[in-house]
Amino acid sequence: MTTVGILGGGQLARMLALAGHPLGLDFLVLDGAADACAGQCAPLLLGDYDDPAALADLAARVDVATFDFENVPADGARRLAADVPVFPNPDALALSQDRLAEKTLFRELGIPVPDFADIVTRADLDAAVARLGMPCILKTRRLGYDGKGQFRIRETADIDAAWDALGAQAQATGLILEGFVAFERELSVVAVRGRDGTFRSWPLTENRHVDGVLSTSLAPAAADADTVHTATAHARAIAERLDYVGVFALELFCRGDTLLANELAPRVHNSGHWTIEGAETSQFENHLRAVLGLPLGDTAPRGVSCMLNWLGAMPDATAALAVPGVHWHDYGKQPREGRKVGHATVRADDAQTLAQRLTELGEALGRQSQVAPVVARLGASTTAG
Amino acid sequence: MTTVGILGGGQLARMLALAGHPLGLDFLVLDGAADACAGQCAPLLLGDYDDPAALADLAARVDVATFDFENVPADGARRLAADVPVFPNPDALALSQDRLAEKTLFRELGIPVPDFADIVTRADLDAAVARLGMPCILKTRRLGYDGKGQFRIRETADIDAAWDALGAQAQATGLILEGFVAFERELSVVAVRGRDGTFRSWPLTENRHVDGVLSTSLAPAAADADTVHTATAHARAIAERLDYVGVFALELFCRGDTLLANELAPRVHNSGHWTIEGAETSQFENHLRAVLGLPLGDTAPRGVSCMLNWLGAMPDATAALAVPGVHWHDYGKQPREGRKVGHATVRADDAQTLAQRLTELGEALGRQSQVAPVVARLGASTTAG
Repeated sequence: MTTVGILGGGQLARMLALAGHPLGLDFLVLDGAADACAGQCAPLLLGDYDDPAALADLAARVDVATFDFENVPADGARRLAADVPVFPNPDALALSQDRLAEKTLFRELGIPVPDFADIVTRADLDAAVARLGMPCILKTRRLGYDGKGQFRIRETADIDAAWDALGAQAQATGLILEGFVAFERELSVVAVRGRDGTFRSWPLTENRHVDGVLSTSLAPAAADADTVHTATAHARAIAERLDYVGVFALELFCRGDTLLANELAPRVHNSGHWTIEGAETSQFENHLRAVLGLPLGDTAPRGVSCMLNWLGAMPDATAALAVPGVHWHDYGKQPREGRKVGHATVRADDAQTLAQRLTELGEALGRQSQVAPVVARLGASTTAG
Repeated sequence: MTTVGILGGGQLARMLALAGHPLGLDFLVLDGAADACAGQCAPLLLGDYDDPAALADLAARVDVATFDFENVPADGARRLAADVPVFPNPDALALSQDRLAEKTLFRELGIPVPDFADIVTRADLDAAVARLGMPCILKTRRLGYDGKGQFRIRETADIDAAWDALGAQAQATGLILEGFVAFERELSVVAVRGRDGTFRSWPLTENRHVDGVLSTSLAPAAADADTVHTATAHARAIAERLDYVGVFALELFCRGDTLLANELAPRVHNSGHWTIEGAETSQFENHLRAVLGLPLGDTAPRGVSCMLNWLGAMPDATAALAVPGVHWHDYGKQPREGRKVGHATVRADDAQTLAQRLTELGEALGRQSQVAPVVARLGASTTAG
């Protein structure tokens, strides 16, 4: 039996394990926390990602390794790759961990990006703010996610505050200043590339963030053929340049006809959770198929889906499951302010039915404000269609 | 967190656990074999179903209990039910373990059944063969499944052989003689009843057996509205009489316009495996929803599906997964002659595409003979439609 090692034991590892058991796979999940939620669905190896002994132990017990978390130290991943095949490859992981290197690569590939500047000193920051204009966002180059490690600069007075908040990290993680993009919507391409270079992508997904954290994903996103083609071509170009193997997400800002690449997530992605019920093959299964060198599955959608993230604590499952087409995903985590503890995917055969179901779910859970923007969007696209 | 105890740790328990983790459930599986395949997906409690200590241990550690195997001794189930809620209830389990009691109940409910006779002595057998005619089938009343514990009587000379094979079990398990039904096809109703009495059924499934073991299930089965209505009404009447909670399957022989009830399986059923990908809610999830008192999920189909059982050893996954719409289920079992080691469900949006995919899969795996009857059936129903 083939055993897949996963560095990181959160909900992504958990959903990988659930998708992989039907393929006859065994798993071993490396995580520093004994209550890592993937441990409820697969054996857990307690240890840190940068502990050579833990990595050696993992390597000895698995046939192939992958990640549920992009901030696994690339050095640890390289050490592991000396002993066992690791996908995606550690160089791709390292690149995606560095916002500056990532945006530089996008630009090299002819993919439009928001303006950005490398920031090492306070003087760099002043000069870059002057060049990019305000508002703009100071971010750590590394180790940021879900809006963490970011500071928005709206006016000159914010520059001091931004430097106070993040300046100390200029050496450790590096800093990047990014021009603010007044985008109309955010799209993501979730795609997969096989060991043999086969490339497939799911339909574009339209994402809404609240306070920097993903709140809803709607798929397939309303998009014309040119947008789909361009977004997919960008994703493919990046994957081929990195010799990427596995699933990844490319986040894009959409402003009129322009698509600006925001960032690459080198793993299964929150904006692809809808594929479990909403596509012929889920991102989790296709990631495993890719990593194992199996043929990739069909990424065609099945109807229209909306994923809703549950933060902090799970809503009432009994109320939610009374609504048709609701699929529940409780990650088995303890409640904690702002923590991603689960999600639901609502699926329907058409946009109008999906809007009805979302409305019903919003009312059942008292979460009308979370579903309202998606319902409005579905109404607009139904009318337009 | 809610913990569900499952008596029996085979593939049904395994697929229940995989369906239940997204609902935030924990599991504890009781099985006498340390390598029970559900143990790869859920914690395993080693012990026999009729060991009072094991049952007490299970009861102390779970919130509710259910079965993956209908031959769990009803006394053990009753002992468990004294400590913890058990669904389906042990009386329903006991009834379905006894072919004679089951057929008697069907007849009481006005559900047509093949002729049958209770057999205690050799003289009973002679008299019953004379009354029912040949061919007919001598079966154990209890503990038979997948064609085991059965002997077909084609001519007078077979009566001795049948009695030699099964007569010794007349006291221990009881015997029943059943008239042979020259049926045109076998259908099953897979249905679910909630704690509050809500009843739902999936579309009828058309099953083909080879050597007494299920080979393929096609759903939705081609059937007119009367047939669907009658089959579903039979299933509902049985469930209500038994105050049944959970998923069950009712197997029916179809001869012209007549439906004859063959047997009740008081659990998730092999002929319902296609619901994982082919229905909005799978039989596994709805069984758990029922057992926990949650609202039942939508049982509507998504396209057309065919399930293929893999016996003995798994076919080549790499060849199979290259075919679109193929969903793989490897139960993680050691190969063994005749053992159910996995299945595949092939899904498509229409019958013609499903036939193409099945043909392609049959060729890829060298299993043309397994798929051919289904492909022929799909061609016939496409032409008829």
